[in-house]
Amino acid sequence: MMIEHIKPNEIEKRSFEIITAELCERGIEIPEDKAFLIKRAIHTTADFDYAETLTFSPDAITIIASLIREGAIIVTDTNMGLSGINKTELAKYGGEVRCFMADKDVAEEAASRGVTRATVSMERAAKFDKKVIFAIGNAPTALIELRRMYDEKLYVPSFVIGVPVGFVNVEAAKDMIMETEIPYIINRGRKGGSNVAAAICNAVLYEMRKGNI
Amino acid sequence: MMIEHIKPNEIEKRSFEIITAELCERGIEIPEDKAFLIKRAIHTTADFDYAETLTFSPDAITIIASLIREGAIIVTDTNMGLSGINKTELAKYGGEVRCFMADKDVAEEAASRGVTRATVSMERAAKFDKKVIFAIGNAPTALIELRRMYDEKLYVPSFVIGVPVGFVNVEAAKDMIMETEIPYIINRGRKGGSNVAAAICNAVLYEMRKGNI
Repeated sequence: MMIEHIKPNEIEKRSFEIITAELCERGIEIPEDKAFLIKRAIHTTADFDYAETLTFSPDAITIIASLIREGAIIVTDTNMGLSGINKTELAKYGGEVRCFMADKDVAEEAASRGVTRATVSMERAAKFDKKVIFAIGNAPTALIELRRMYDEKLYVPSFVIGVPVGFVNVEAAKDMIMETEIPYIINRGRKGGSNVAAAICNAVLYEMRKGNI
Repeated sequence: MMIEHIKPNEIEKRSFEIITAELCERGIEIPEDKAFLIKRAIHTTADFDYAETLTFSPDAITIIASLIREGAIIVTDTNMGLSGINKTELAKYGGEVRCFMADKDVAEEAASRGVTRATVSMERAAKFDKKVIFAIGNAPTALIELRRMYDEKLYVPSFVIGVPVGFVNVEAAKDMIMETEIPYIINRGRKGGSNVAAAICNAVLYEMRKGNI
Protein backbone atom coordinates (compact mmCIF):
# COMPACT_ATOMS: atom_id res chain seq x y z
CA MET A 1 0.00 0.00 0.00
CA MET A 2 1.39 3.39 -1.03
CA ILE A 3 1.80 6.44 1.15
CA GLU A 4 -0.35 9.36 0.07
CA HIS A 5 1.71 12.55 0.14
CA ILE A 6 -0.32 15.16 1.90
CA LYS A 7 0.51 18.25 3.93
CA PRO A 8 0.19 17.88 7.73
CA ASN A 9 -2.52 20.54 7.96
CA GLU A 10 -4.58 18.80 5.29
CA ILE A 11 -4.65 15.32 6.84
CA GLU A 12 -7.69 16.01 9.00
CA LYS A 13 -9.62 17.62 6.13
CA ARG A 14 -8.85 14.63 3.89
CA SER A 15 -9.91 12.23 6.67
CA PHE A 16 -13.28 13.93 7.00
CA GLU A 17 -13.77 13.78 3.23
CA ILE A 18 -13.14 10.02 3.32
CA ILE A 19 -15.56 9.60 6.23
CA THR A 20 -18.24 11.62 4.40
CA ALA A 21 -17.78 9.55 1.24
CA GLU A 22 -17.91 6.24 3.11
CA LEU A 23 -21.03 7.18 5.04
CA CYS A 24 -22.63 7.79 1.65
CA GLU A 25 -21.32 4.49 0.20
CA ARG A 26 -22.63 2.63 3.23
CA GLY A 27 -26.01 4.32 2.82
CA ILE A 28 -25.83 5.79 6.31
CA GLU A 29 -27.64 9.10 6.68
CA ILE A 30 -26.78 11.31 9.62
CA PRO A 31 -28.54 14.48 10.77
CA GLU A 32 -26.83 17.47 9.18
CA ASP A 33 -26.73 19.57 12.35
CA LYS A 34 -24.89 16.79 14.22
CA ALA A 35 -22.66 15.63 11.36
CA PHE A 36 -19.60 17.53 12.64
CA LEU A 37 -19.79 15.61 15.91
CA ILE A 38 -20.66 12.16 14.56
CA LYS A 39 -17.87 12.42 11.98
CA ARG A 40 -15.36 13.41 14.65
CA ALA A 41 -16.30 10.35 16.73
CA ILE A 42 -15.72 8.21 13.63
CA HIS A 43 -12.45 10.06 12.97
CA THR A 44 -11.29 9.23 16.50
CA THR A 45 -12.17 5.53 16.34
CA ALA A 46 -12.31 4.57 12.63
CA ASP A 47 -15.56 2.92 13.66
CA PHE A 48 -18.68 3.72 11.63
CA ASP A 49 -20.91 2.18 14.31
CA TYR A 50 -20.97 5.59 15.97
CA ALA A 51 -23.08 6.92 13.10
CA GLU A 52 -25.85 4.60 14.22
CA THR A 53 -25.46 4.60 18.00
CA LEU A 54 -24.75 8.20 19.01
CA THR A 55 -27.95 9.55 20.51
CA PHE A 56 -28.86 13.14 21.32
CA SER A 57 -31.49 14.58 23.63
CA PRO A 58 -33.55 17.44 22.11
CA ASP A 59 -31.41 20.50 21.30
CA ALA A 60 -28.36 18.80 22.81
CA ILE A 61 -25.87 20.67 20.63
CA THR A 62 -27.37 24.08 21.35
CA ILE A 63 -27.52 23.35 25.06
CA ILE A 64 -23.93 22.13 25.42
CA ALA A 65 -22.61 25.05 23.35
CA SER A 66 -24.51 27.50 25.55
CA LEU A 67 -23.13 25.88 28.69
CA ILE A 68 -19.57 26.13 27.39
CA ARG A 69 -20.17 29.74 26.40
CA GLU A 70 -21.33 30.46 29.96
CA GLY A 71 -18.07 29.05 31.35
CA ALA A 72 -19.31 25.63 32.50
CA ILE A 73 -16.75 23.20 33.89
CA ILE A 74 -16.17 19.84 32.22
CA VAL A 75 -15.64 16.95 34.64
CA THR A 76 -14.16 13.73 33.27
CA ASP A 77 -13.92 10.28 34.80
CA THR A 78 -10.38 9.64 33.54
CA ASN A 79 -7.20 11.61 33.25
CA MET A 80 -7.02 10.38 29.65
CA GLY A 81 -10.27 12.19 28.96
CA LEU A 82 -8.97 15.31 30.67
CA SER A 83 -5.77 15.07 28.67
CA GLY A 84 -7.61 14.81 25.36
CA ILE A 85 -9.92 17.80 25.71
CA ASN A 86 -8.69 21.02 24.10
CA LYS A 87 -8.21 23.15 27.20
CA THR A 88 -7.03 26.19 25.23
CA GLU A 89 -10.34 26.38 23.37
CA LEU A 90 -12.32 25.80 26.55
CA ALA A 91 -10.42 28.51 28.42
CA LYS A 92 -11.60 31.09 25.85
CA TYR A 93 -14.99 30.88 27.54
CA GLY A 94 -13.63 30.71 31.08
CA GLY A 95 -14.08 26.95 31.31
CA GLU A 96 -11.73 24.31 32.62
CA VAL A 97 -11.55 20.52 32.84
CA ARG A 98 -11.39 18.67 36.14
CA CYS A 99 -10.89 15.03 37.08
CA PHE A 100 -10.89 13.68 40.61
CA MET A 101 -10.15 10.05 39.81
CA ALA A 102 -6.46 10.10 40.71
CA ASP A 103 -6.94 12.07 43.95
CA LYS A 104 -5.63 10.07 46.87
CA ASP A 105 -8.53 10.91 49.16
CA VAL A 106 -11.03 9.85 46.47
CA ALA A 107 -9.41 6.43 46.30
CA GLU A 108 -9.42 6.15 50.10
CA GLU A 109 -13.06 7.16 50.45
CA ALA A 110 -14.09 4.79 47.64
CA ALA A 111 -12.26 1.86 49.25
CA SER A 112 -13.71 2.54 52.70
CA ARG A 113 -17.27 2.79 51.32
CA GLY A 114 -16.92 -0.11 48.88
CA VAL A 115 -17.88 2.04 45.90
CA THR A 116 -15.93 3.03 42.80
CA ARG A 117 -13.74 6.10 42.62
CA ALA A 118 -16.08 7.33 39.89
CA THR A 119 -18.98 7.36 42.36
CA VAL A 120 -17.03 9.51 44.81
CA SER A 121 -15.79 11.74 41.98
CA MET A 122 -19.34 12.49 40.86
CA GLU A 123 -20.34 13.48 44.40
CA ARG A 124 -17.42 15.92 44.51
CA ALA A 125 -18.28 17.39 41.12
CA ALA A 126 -21.88 17.91 42.27
CA LYS A 127 -20.56 20.35 44.90
CA PHE A 128 -19.21 22.82 42.33
CA ASP A 129 -20.87 26.22 42.32
CA LYS A 130 -20.60 26.33 38.53
CA LYS A 131 -22.59 24.33 36.03
CA VAL A 132 -20.96 21.04 35.11
CA ILE A 133 -20.81 19.09 31.85
CA PHE A 134 -19.97 15.48 32.71
CA ALA A 135 -17.81 13.78 30.09
CA ILE A 136 -17.92 10.11 31.09
CA GLY A 137 -15.88 7.79 28.88
CA ASN A 138 -15.05 4.99 31.23
CA ALA A 139 -17.09 4.32 34.34
CA PRO A 140 -20.77 3.32 34.15
CA THR A 141 -20.84 3.80 37.92
CA ALA A 142 -20.39 7.53 37.28
CA LEU A 143 -23.66 7.58 35.32
CA ILE A 144 -25.39 5.40 37.92
CA GLU A 145 -24.34 7.84 40.66
CA LEU A 146 -25.55 10.85 38.65
CA ARG A 147 -28.91 9.12 38.25
CA ARG A 148 -29.07 8.37 41.97
CA MET A 149 -28.48 12.02 42.88
CA TYR A 150 -31.07 13.03 40.27
CA ASP A 151 -33.66 10.57 41.63
CA GLU A 152 -33.06 11.72 45.19
CA LYS A 153 -33.39 15.35 44.05
CA LEU A 154 -29.92 16.13 45.39
CA TYR A 155 -28.44 17.31 42.10
CA VAL A 156 -29.25 17.75 38.42
CA PRO A 157 -26.26 17.65 36.05
CA SER A 158 -26.36 20.40 33.43
CA PHE A 159 -25.27 17.99 30.69
CA VAL A 160 -24.03 14.41 30.39
CA ILE A 161 -21.77 13.09 27.67
CA GLY A 162 -22.31 9.40 28.42
CA VAL A 163 -19.92 7.23 26.47
CA PRO A 164 -18.47 4.71 28.93
CA VAL A 165 -17.13 1.58 27.28
CA GLY A 166 -17.39 -1.98 28.49
CA PHE A 167 -19.28 -5.07 29.41
CA VAL A 168 -20.68 -4.66 32.92
CA ASN A 169 -23.61 -2.28 33.44
CA VAL A 170 -22.50 0.02 30.62
CA GLU A 171 -25.65 -0.25 28.53
CA ALA A 172 -27.94 -0.10 31.55
CA ALA A 173 -26.17 2.96 32.92
CA LYS A 174 -26.59 4.77 29.60
CA ASP A 175 -30.29 3.90 29.58
CA MET A 176 -30.59 5.32 33.12
CA ILE A 177 -29.48 8.75 31.92
CA MET A 178 -31.63 8.65 28.77
CA GLU A 179 -34.72 8.06 30.93
CA THR A 180 -34.24 11.42 32.71
CA GLU A 181 -34.72 15.04 31.69
CA ILE A 182 -30.97 15.64 31.76
CA PRO A 183 -29.65 16.87 28.39
CA TYR A 184 -27.25 14.30 26.95
CA ILE A 185 -25.13 12.95 24.17
CA ILE A 186 -24.91 9.20 24.68
CA ASN A 187 -23.48 6.36 22.65
CA ARG A 188 -25.92 3.49 22.97
CA GLY A 189 -24.42 0.04 23.43
CA ARG A 190 -21.10 -1.05 24.81
CA LYS A 191 -18.80 1.20 22.85
CA GLY A 192 -17.28 4.50 23.83
CA GLY A 193 -14.16 5.52 25.68
CA SER A 194 -12.26 8.45 27.10
CA ASN A 195 -11.03 9.23 23.60
CA VAL A 196 -14.62 9.43 22.36
CA ALA A 197 -15.66 11.62 25.32
CA ALA A 198 -12.80 13.99 24.52
CA ALA A 199 -13.60 13.92 20.80
CA ILE A 200 -17.20 14.95 21.48
CA CYS A 201 -16.07 17.88 23.65
CA ASN A 202 -13.54 18.93 21.01
CA ALA A 203 -16.05 18.62 18.18
CA VAL A 204 -18.30 21.10 19.97
CA LEU A 205 -15.40 23.43 20.78
CA TYR A 206 -14.14 23.45 17.18
CA GLU A 207 -17.64 24.04 15.81
CA MET A 208 -18.01 26.96 18.22
CA ARG A 209 -14.67 28.35 17.02
CA LYS A 210 -15.97 28.23 13.46
CA GLY A 211 -19.02 30.19 14.61
CA ASN A 212 -21.39 27.45 13.42
CA ILE A 213 -23.06 26.85 16.78
CA MET B 1 -32.02 -3.30 31.38
CA MET B 2 -31.15 -4.09 35.00
CA ILE B 3 -28.02 -3.07 36.85
CA GLU B 4 -25.89 -6.01 37.90
CA HIS B 5 -24.76 -5.52 41.48
CA ILE B 6 -21.08 -6.24 41.60
CA LYS B 7 -18.21 -5.08 43.80
CA PRO B 8 -15.92 -2.44 42.26
CA ASN B 9 -12.86 -4.70 42.41
CA GLU B 10 -14.72 -7.47 40.59
CA ILE B 11 -15.93 -5.45 37.60
CA GLU B 12 -12.77 -6.01 35.58
CA LYS B 13 -12.70 -9.73 36.34
CA ARG B 14 -16.34 -10.06 35.28
CA SER B 15 -15.66 -8.06 32.10
CA PHE B 16 -12.86 -10.43 31.12
CA GLU B 17 -15.12 -13.43 31.76
CA ILE B 18 -17.72 -11.95 29.41
CA ILE B 19 -15.06 -11.26 26.77
CA THR B 20 -13.75 -14.83 27.05
CA ALA B 21 -17.25 -16.25 26.74
CA GLU B 22 -18.12 -14.09 23.72
CA LEU B 23 -14.91 -14.92 21.90
CA CYS B 24 -15.94 -18.56 22.30
CA GLU B 25 -19.53 -17.90 21.14
CA ARG B 26 -18.23 -16.02 18.12
CA GLY B 27 -15.89 -18.92 17.32
CA ILE B 28 -12.84 -16.66 17.52
CA GLU B 29 -9.69 -18.45 18.67
CA ILE B 30 -6.83 -16.35 19.99
CA PRO B 31 -3.30 -17.52 20.86
CA GLU B 32 -3.16 -18.40 24.54
CA ASP B 33 0.11 -16.61 25.24
CA LYS B 34 -1.30 -13.34 23.86
CA ALA B 35 -4.84 -13.68 25.22
CA PHE B 36 -4.19 -11.32 28.17
CA LEU B 37 -3.26 -8.55 25.74
CA ILE B 38 -5.91 -9.15 23.07
CA LYS B 39 -8.62 -9.32 25.73
CA ARG B 40 -7.43 -6.06 27.29
CA ALA B 41 -7.65 -4.33 23.90
CA ILE B 42 -11.23 -5.62 23.59
CA HIS B 43 -11.93 -4.53 27.17
CA THR B 44 -10.75 -1.01 26.31
CA THR B 45 -12.80 -0.69 23.12
CA ALA B 46 -15.70 -3.18 23.38
CA ASP B 47 -14.63 -4.06 19.85
CA PHE B 48 -14.01 -7.73 19.03
CA ASP B 49 -12.29 -6.78 15.75
CA TYR B 50 -9.06 -6.55 17.73
CA ALA B 51 -9.07 -10.33 18.16
CA GLU B 52 -8.59 -10.64 14.42
CA THR B 53 -6.37 -7.66 13.61
CA LEU B 54 -3.77 -7.44 16.39
CA THR B 55 -0.55 -8.75 14.92
CA PHE B 56 2.65 -9.72 16.72
CA SER B 57 6.20 -10.10 15.45
CA PRO B 58 7.96 -13.29 16.67
CA ASP B 59 8.46 -13.34 20.45
CA ALA B 60 6.96 -9.85 20.72
CA ILE B 61 5.66 -10.37 24.25
CA THR B 62 8.95 -11.73 25.58
CA ILE B 63 10.88 -8.93 23.91
CA ILE B 64 8.73 -6.07 25.19
CA ALA B 65 8.69 -7.51 28.71
CA SER B 66 12.49 -7.79 28.67
CA LEU B 67 12.81 -4.21 27.49
CA ILE B 68 10.56 -2.95 30.28
CA ARG B 69 12.48 -5.05 32.79
CA GLU B 70 15.71 -3.39 31.57
CA GLY B 71 14.21 0.07 32.22
CA ALA B 72 13.34 1.04 28.66
CA ILE B 73 11.54 4.33 28.12
CA ILE B 74 8.09 4.40 26.52
CA VAL B 75 7.55 7.26 24.08
CA THR B 76 3.98 8.09 23.05
CA ASP B 77 2.66 10.29 20.28
CA THR B 78 -0.13 11.81 22.39
CA ASN B 79 -0.50 13.08 25.92
CA MET B 80 -3.63 10.93 26.14
CA GLY B 81 -1.46 7.86 25.60
CA LEU B 82 1.02 9.08 28.19
CA SER B 83 -1.83 9.72 30.59
CA GLY B 84 -3.27 6.23 30.18
CA ILE B 85 -0.10 4.21 30.79
CA ASN B 86 0.38 2.95 34.34
CA LYS B 87 3.46 4.91 35.34
CA THR B 88 3.62 3.41 38.83
CA GLU B 89 4.04 -0.09 37.40
CA LEU B 90 6.57 1.12 34.84
CA ALA B 91 8.62 2.94 37.48
CA LYS B 92 9.17 -0.38 39.32
CA TYR B 93 11.61 -1.25 36.55
CA GLY B 94 13.14 2.23 36.29
CA GLY B 95 11.09 3.13 33.23
CA GLU B 96 9.18 6.29 32.42
CA VAL B 97 6.84 7.59 29.73
CA ARG B 98 7.69 10.57 27.57
CA CYS B 99 5.75 12.56 24.99
CA PHE B 100 7.12 15.50 23.02
CA MET B 101 3.98 16.36 21.08
CA ALA B 102 2.94 19.35 23.19
CA ASP B 103 6.45 20.83 23.42
CA LYS B 104 6.45 24.33 22.00
CA ASP B 105 9.72 23.91 20.10
CA VAL B 106 8.47 20.67 18.52
CA ALA B 107 5.46 22.53 17.10
CA GLU B 108 7.70 25.32 15.85
CA GLU B 109 10.16 22.99 14.17
CA ALA B 110 7.34 20.96 12.60
CA ALA B 111 5.69 24.09 11.19
CA SER B 112 8.93 25.48 9.78
CA ARG B 113 9.84 22.17 8.11
CA GLY B 114 6.30 21.39 6.91
CA VAL B 115 6.22 18.04 8.71
CA THR B 116 4.02 16.77 11.52
CA ARG B 117 4.86 17.20 15.17
CA ALA B 118 4.96 13.41 15.36
CA THR B 119 7.83 13.35 12.86
CA VAL B 120 9.87 15.77 14.96
CA SER B 121 8.95 13.90 18.15
CA MET B 122 10.30 10.63 16.76
CA GLU B 123 13.61 12.29 15.87
CA ARG B 124 13.90 13.56 19.44
CA ALA B 125 13.09 10.16 20.91
CA ALA B 126 15.75 8.58 18.71
CA LYS B 127 18.37 10.63 20.55
CA PHE B 128 17.72 8.97 23.93
CA ASP B 129 20.62 6.98 25.37
CA LYS B 130 18.15 4.40 26.66
CA LYS B 131 16.21 1.86 24.65
CA VAL B 132 12.80 3.13 23.56
CA ILE B 133 9.46 1.40 23.15
CA PHE B 134 7.35 3.52 20.82
CA ALA B 135 3.65 3.47 21.69
CA ILE B 136 1.99 5.11 18.68
CA GLY B 137 -1.78 5.44 18.91
CA ASN B 138 -2.45 8.43 16.74
CA ALA B 139 0.01 9.57 14.09
CA PRO B 140 0.89 7.38 11.11
CA THR B 141 3.62 9.93 10.35
CA ALA B 142 5.37 8.73 13.52
CA LEU B 143 5.62 5.22 12.05
CA ILE B 144 6.66 6.60 8.65
CA GLU B 145 9.47 8.58 10.31
CA LEU B 146 10.65 5.55 12.30
CA ARG B 147 10.80 3.60 9.04
CA ARG B 148 12.76 6.39 7.35
CA MET B 149 15.37 6.42 10.11
CA TYR B 150 15.53 2.62 9.93
CA ASP B 151 15.97 2.62 6.15
CA GLU B 152 18.70 5.26 6.35
CA LYS B 153 20.42 3.24 9.11
CA LEU B 154 20.19 6.20 11.47
CA TYR B 155 18.21 4.44 14.19
CA VAL B 156 16.53 1.16 15.03
CA PRO B 157 13.61 1.37 17.50
CA SER B 158 13.76 -1.34 20.17
CA PHE B 159 10.03 -1.98 19.87
CA VAL B 160 7.01 -0.43 18.14
CA ILE B 161 3.44 -0.61 19.37
CA GLY B 162 1.82 0.59 16.15
CA VAL B 163 -1.86 1.29 16.62
CA PRO B 164 -2.55 4.67 15.03
CA VAL B 165 -6.17 5.19 14.07
CA GLY B 166 -7.54 6.86 10.99
CA PHE B 167 -8.10 7.17 7.31
CA VAL B 168 -5.00 8.72 5.74
CA ASN B 169 -1.85 6.59 5.47
CA VAL B 170 -2.66 4.63 8.62
CA GLU B 171 -2.74 1.18 7.03
CA ALA B 172 0.29 1.88 4.84
CA ALA B 173 2.31 3.15 7.80
CA LYS B 174 1.55 -0.01 9.78
CA ASP B 175 2.65 -2.13 6.81
CA MET B 176 5.91 -0.15 6.66
CA ILE B 177 6.84 -1.25 10.19
CA MET B 178 5.74 -4.86 9.65
CA GLU B 179 8.13 -5.10 6.67
CA THR B 180 11.15 -4.42 8.89
CA GLU B 181 13.03 -6.45 11.50
CA ILE B 182 11.76 -4.16 14.28
CA PRO B 183 9.83 -6.10 16.95
CA TYR B 184 6.23 -4.95 16.99
CA ILE B 185 2.65 -5.24 18.13
CA ILE B 186 0.50 -3.70 15.41
CA ASN B 187 -3.22 -3.50 14.83
CA ARG B 188 -3.75 -4.04 11.12
CA GLY B 189 -6.32 -1.82 9.43
CA ARG B 190 -7.63 1.58 10.37
CA LYS B 191 -8.47 1.02 13.98
CA GLY B 192 -6.44 1.77 17.07
CA GLY B 193 -6.02 4.82 19.24
CA SER B 194 -4.12 6.26 22.16
CA ASN B 195 -6.38 4.31 24.49
CA VAL B 196 -5.42 1.08 22.71
CA ALA B 197 -1.71 1.95 22.81
CA ALA B 198 -1.98 2.55 26.55
CA ALA B 199 -4.02 -0.63 27.04
CA ILE B 200 -1.32 -2.71 25.33
CA CYS B 201 1.39 -1.21 27.54
CA ASN B 202 -0.72 -1.80 30.64
CA ALA B 203 -1.58 -5.36 29.63
CA VAL B 204 2.13 -6.17 29.51
CA LEU B 205 2.82 -4.37 32.80
CA TYR B 206 -0.01 -6.18 34.61
CA GLU B 207 1.05 -9.55 33.23
CA MET B 208 4.60 -8.84 34.43
CA ARG B 209 3.25 -7.97 37.88
CA LYS B 210 1.50 -11.33 37.97
CA GLY B 211 4.84 -12.98 37.15
CA ASN B 212 3.41 -14.58 34.01
CA ILE B 213 5.89 -13.04 31.59
